[in-house]
Amino acid sequence: MTARIIDGKLLAAQIREQVSSDVQALKAMNRSVRLAAILVGSSPAARVYADNQARTFAQAGVEYELHELADQITQAELDAVLATLAKDPGVTGIMVHLPLPPHINTQQTQYHIDILKDVEGVNPANIGNVLYGHPIIAPCTALAAVALIDTTGVPLQGAEVTVVGASRIAGRPAALLLTERGATVTVCHIHTRDLVRHTQRADILVVAVGKPGLIQPRHVSPGAVVIDIGINRVTATDATGKSATKTVGDVDFQAVSETASWITPVPGGVGPVTVAMLLKNTVRAARLVHGLDQPF
Amino acid sequence: MTARIIDGKLLAAQIREQVSSDVQALKAMNRSVRLAAILVGSSPAARVYADNQARTFAQAGVEYELHELADQITQAELDAVLATLAKDPGVTGIMVHLPLPPHINTQQTQYHIDILKDVEGVNPANIGNVLYGHPIIAPCTALAAVALIDTTGVPLQGAEVTVVGASRIAGRPAALLLTERGATVTVCHIHTRDLVRHTQRADILVVAVGKPGLIQPRHVSPGAVVIDIGINRVTATDATGKSATKTVGDVDFQAVSETASWITPVPGGVGPVTVAMLLKNTVRAARLVHGLDQPF
Repeated sequence: MTARIIDGKLLAAQIREQVSSDVQALKAMNRSVRLAAILVGSSPAARVYADNQARTFAQAGVEYELHELADQITQAELDAVLATLAKDPGVTGIMVHLPLPPHINTQQTQYHIDILKDVEGVNPANIGNVLYGHPIIAPCTALAAVALIDTTGVPLQGAEVTVVGASRIAGRPAALLLTERGATVTVCHIHTRDLVRHTQRADILVVAVGKPGLIQPRHVSPGAVVIDIGINRVTATDATGKSATKTVGDVDFQAVSETASWITPVPGGVGPVTVAMLLKNTVRAARLVHGLDQPF
Repeated sequence: MTARIIDGKLLAAQIREQVSSDVQALKAMNRSVRLAAILVGSSPAARVYADNQARTFAQAGVEYELHELADQITQAELDAVLATLAKDPGVTGIMVHLPLPPHINTQQTQYHIDILKDVEGVNPANIGNVLYGHPIIAPCTALAAVALIDTTGVPLQGAEVTVVGASRIAGRPAALLLTERGATVTVCHIHTRDLVRHTQRADILVVAVGKPGLIQPRHVSPGAVVIDIGINRVTATDATGKSATKTVGDVDFQAVSETASWITPVPGGVGPVTVAMLLKNTVRAARLVHGLDQPF
């Protein structure tokens, strides 16, 4: 069979359209939607990323402020910035760009992001609320993976799902959301003895490792749904010696397309939907901050 | 084969001995160890449980205060009590007895337990910190399950673990801790299509459902380790018409003992170790509150 492609760009566009409309509705009620992003230290790459993000928020009508903090900032100073933003009634969303410098504790920093303004869903309390089955704001990548599965119409309740990759940012939160939806979830990782055995019995395979070509047809049950969270930059050199860099996932897309029933491409799959979920979470945070939604 | 019994009473006694010694050491440094327990509404059963618990803490040298609150207390009032206890420098541990009355939101209440004083590890932030791989205080039942496995010497890294039961209090937190230890974990529950298939491939089977006799020999791979978290009261009537009530787990202990390599009994397995972990967490909380341990 040849897999149908799950169109992440299309889903992202639909979500973003809804977000723009929701932001306009909030503005019409004189409720602000304003994101504060924190960038510690200045690498050119992080700066480019932050600029792109500013544009994304602007397109959705979200006000955006970038706080550029010195590389030498102390943990206490950073926590204090987050406390100030938590209290600022004009700020409805907060995010902290990673990675942080080595002397800063990421987990402690994320704990100091106000849980109602935590648009990335990375405060440990928001992770715990996902486990408790009543998320306030859930992590964007996990939300994207679930939303992409939902577009296929394949039911999650009772489905066998194998998540490959136990990262704190993607694999583990996705496993929590999928369990909450009634799937039987197995989380595989570097210590898993027999990866193929676990991936082969999956109705739905979610991959978040960061290793190009990791998932081959032998890993995939005929007719499975394959969600590729991996984003890898690879450089290939052709016969003429010319090299080109491209973005690929963890799944061998061409080969696995012959086995799967549905598959997300990279780029154009999980990536754009994750960005759209960040925007959707930004609306959710604003509604929570303005008391239009209740957290519990 | 006949399974060796994992002696929860013995492990619990060892942990409690260490706890008593740790509490004495803290007292010798003039650092208090004082638990505040909250009981909302008054059922005779809850009252008996609270009294038993008071005795357990007293035996370990932990000071104990019970706050009995009226059934009609509002959410805001309860949250305020928790905020007062969070600020009270004389209180180093806080726990809230469940169940709470229907008009009280359990998740919101648990979120208001100070994370450093949260001896049961139920604040969603403490759950999230387990997922992030750096627990501050982890849930007692999950800690007990892992500690009992560790006594067998069977390595968790790379082990196939099936957790039966996706409860918020036991199954899901246990799955997080086991994943963090390098096990390949599958969480099964009411929607799982083929339970036997999942339990049969487990090196380690952790069961937390609350259904007597759920796990039979056909569920268990020869030589597996079986951890039974279930606690059920069952009444049996004998041939003479005399009925007796006893406590059993979710596993058919006699029958499964012929298949497993190690098995926890009920009573005398997970139960006493869970109580011991509550005491151990109480010491941990006191050390955090007094600044002797660092949360991050």
